[in-house]
Amino acid sequence: MTVLVVGTMAFDSVETPFGKVDHVLGGSATYFSYSASFFSPVRLVSVIGNDFRQADLDLLKQRSVDLAGVQKAAGKTFSWSGKYEGDMNSAQTLDVNLNVYGDFKPQLPQAYKDSRFVFLANGSPASQMMVLDQVAKPEFVVADTMNLWIETSQADLRRLLTRIDALILNDGEARMLAREQNLVAAGEKVLTMGPRLVIIKKGEHGSFLLTRDGTRFAIPAFPVPVVKDPTGAGDSFAGGVVGFLAREGAHDDATVRRAMVYGTVMASFVVEDFSLEAFKRLSAEGMKRRYDQFVKFISL
Amino acid sequence: MTVLVVGTMAFDSVETPFGKVDHVLGGSATYFSYSASFFSPVRLVSVIGNDFRQADLDLLKQRSVDLAGVQKAAGKTFSWSGKYEGDMNSAQTLDVNLNVYGDFKPQLPQAYKDSRFVFLANGSPASQMMVLDQVAKPEFVVADTMNLWIETSQADLRRLLTRIDALILNDGEARMLAREQNLVAAGEKVLTMGPRLVIIKKGEHGSFLLTRDGTRFAIPAFPVPVVKDPTGAGDSFAGGVVGFLAREGAHDDATVRRAMVYGTVMASFVVEDFSLEAFKRLSAEGMKRRYDQFVKFISL
Repeated sequence: MTVLVVGTMAFDSVETPFGKVDHVLGGSATYFSYSASFFSPVRLVSVIGNDFRQADLDLLKQRSVDLAGVQKAAGKTFSWSGKYEGDMNSAQTLDVNLNVYGDFKPQLPQAYKDSRFVFLANGSPASQMMVLDQVAKPEFVVADTMNLWIETSQADLRRLLTRIDALILNDGEARMLAREQNLVAAGEKVLTMGPRLVIIKKGEHGSFLLTRDGTRFAIPAFPVPVVKDPTGAGDSFAGGVVGFLAREGAHDDATVRRAMVYGTVMASFVVEDFSLEAFKRLSAEGMKRRYDQFVKFISL
Repeated sequence: MTVLVVGTMAFDSVETPFGKVDHVLGGSATYFSYSASFFSPVRLVSVIGNDFRQADLDLLKQRSVDLAGVQKAAGKTFSWSGKYEGDMNSAQTLDVNLNVYGDFKPQLPQAYKDSRFVFLANGSPASQMMVLDQVAKPEFVVADTMNLWIETSQADLRRLLTRIDALILNDGEARMLAREQNLVAAGEKVLTMGPRLVIIKKGEHGSFLLTRDGTRFAIPAFPVPVVKDPTGAGDSFAGGVVGFLAREGAHDDATVRRAMVYGTVMASFVVEDFSLEAFKRLSAEGMKRRYDQFVKFISL
């Protein structure tokens, strides 16, 4: 089955202890799409400025990512600049320019409207709902969010949470949304807000699943000795998760557990280099090999 | 097989968001012994002052902990006072009084000298080696350490590392000892310092095993929605690990993996209440039940 994703396509400038890159391909929907494309065809909804590079579009096209939903607007592409230090678990944002993304009204091409698996990458809850409104019969909707929306759009966010099946968010965001320091209790509280599943991303510490029917499941991150740039790890994780679910056409507990492993594997590659460089070198076989290694890594 | 442990017996005063206790039973060797006693007989080496309570000694005796190695010295028992806030992953020490522990020269009773499984709880590397010198034929020696010794006794610590089989330490300590921010790389560097196994404790995020022959294994913590007091979690974890290894009389990879699960389970109980209160309520059946739950929690 195909996956529908809405989110940013961006130019990133990133500095880490391992180097510095300027104006490279980034964005939540970009990372998600490339990652999900290892499992399913992807339908992408986003907006780019007239400075966007054809080579970057071609990169996604080659991965069977449908770009019919990518609007081209007058102006510059969304750009972000950030820095990672120390344990590199969180970025320090140096600069954000919404540019054409500021006026973005997501419009689904007619052919996208029958999508069943949907990922609403981080964006305003209002815009995320605008996408949902256009999907005829969504079967499994996953959303991401961030501290900004928890702080400034709590009412919209709470409405969104009643319309989705799963929320993927990081540990700090879960604690903030639930107003609860204990991560297990925080996850349990988020479950009461609407979603049937909550997946908490913990960076180098892995991820944690809670479901309304009582399932609890956690896995560590794949051990990567050199993390060059964590940008895109969360969206690549989500790409593996939702891409795999769409491929299986299922979202029962057992499938979600395996999906989290695929998400973990995809994230472990993307952090090994800047931008999408490590993905570009990755084959389906290389991905499957690491999946098998990871299963050994977590098995008794 | 029995387990030999050397470490502190203490009085703790602890404040957490869930309450405050004053002068309750604590200490690394105490937590370790009680935890390990679920798996193996324990031989305890420590020192107490003349203010130590008979009821606390009786508590350990009932758990088949051999107290022949506990010296009684004139003066007060080691005491520690600390506070946990926020995510409760680390304690803020308010006060430490070494008291009789300051002059402690560990002396093994003759009957302890044939011990094969040894745990050197956190203490000066010099005193840890003093214990090792008295064990005739140690088969598997595990040590803990802390930032204080990494900072002040690095030379002794590095000597100790060449004499032990496994080092258990927390993530911050691993990063400090290896002078390396990436935890995987830090663990790999610690392996080059001597131990065949390194187990990195990550508090609420679980634990991570690295071995010289290339094994990598990680498990999350058991999801505890109400952590009342994390004091003793690390030593209770170690008690489960080393206690189980001694029970099996083995330390191959597969056994170490299962031992880490038992350690995780023991730690998950102790944090549910202050001091050793949750242990006192715990039965062998209750422990085994949570082991089975945990295996489900981490299984694909």
